[in-house]
Amino acid sequence: MGKLYYSYQMIHKLAQSIAEQVKESGFSPDVIVAIGTGGFIPARILRTYLGKPILAVGIAYYDLNDRPMDYPRKVQWIEEAEKQLAGKRILLVDEVDDSRVTLEYCTKELLNYRPAALAVSVLHNKQKEKRGTFPPGVQHIFVGENLGDDWIVYPWDARDIDEHDKNATLGH
Amino acid sequence: MGKLYYSYQMIHKLAQSIAEQVKESGFSPDVIVAIGTGGFIPARILRTYLGKPILAVGIAYYDLNDRPMDYPRKVQWIEEAEKQLAGKRILLVDEVDDSRVTLEYCTKELLNYRPAALAVSVLHNKQKEKRGTFPPGVQHIFVGENLGDDWIVYPWDARDIDEHDKNATLGH
Repeated sequence: MGKLYYSYQMIHKLAQSIAEQVKESGFSPDVIVAIGTGGFIPARILRTYLGKPILAVGIAYYDLNDRPMDYPRKVQWIEEAEKQLAGKRILLVDEVDDSRVTLEYCTKELLNYRPAALAVSVLHNKQKEKRGTFPPGVQHIFVGENLGDDWIVYPWDARDIDEHDKNATLGH
Repeated sequence: MGKLYYSYQMIHKLAQSIAEQVKESGFSPDVIVAIGTGGFIPARILRTYLGKPILAVGIAYYDLNDRPMDYPRKVQWIEEAEKQLAGKRILLVDEVDDSRVTLEYCTKELLNYRPAALAVSVLHNKQKEKRGTFPPGVQHIFVGENLGDDWIVYPWDARDIDEHDKNATLGH
């Protein structure tokens, strides 16, 4: 399995292309919901193009004793979510649709608050067998780029950003 | 007033240098609290070096009718903050210490939950007269870079990232 390195510039442009897809679709979000921590950076860039506020949720796959789990748990959720989300058009943002488990979990949770509309956007979708599915209430799925089951290396995880950028330039 | 353009690479390295300062200080955070939306990207990079979870808070200077206000209001806060923050060592993260009003507000709010320790980190501190002050409970202030009262242009606000990066290269 090859490693695909993405520079910040490539991520910024992917987010820009997602914002263009959103505008072309006619979907006009009231609020962006960022799934932390991977969704924080794409969501913040999308905000530049879409001009909407961000609410953040934290999702983790380890329990309180740092043991890995199969299913997500909430590290942080939205206070008074009912009040903040009912009747709103929500754009949910994460960095990657891998197994789809996180996205299934978050979309189902958000639909409980009866938003007017719900769309999902990810920088990358891995075209592979998915463990999760999108519930029928998800109206749009905006994807920056479709990939195979690659090992994606995001710039914010780089311990040496110069080395990372060299790999990003070589790899694409 | 000159505009100072920062590339993502410069931001990444500033966050790395803050993480080194944190480690050298002996301050060992249990949790990172990101002030949204400016703190999302620095906090996510700091997480790579410090390995701690992020909680996000949203702060805005406009009211619910989009009218500007002098003082911040909470767009999002931490659910069950008492339970999540009492006895914890918190590293509060924002992109810039400008007037210090936001940081005064957030540090005072966080101190209400009786954390074991509270430190602040910002990519940039503007050396100017401040409207806000840090309460005595703030034990460390980690600064990536001290500036004058400059106009800082962050990469995540760029509508054209190539143009932005050209300006960042020229300007430094």
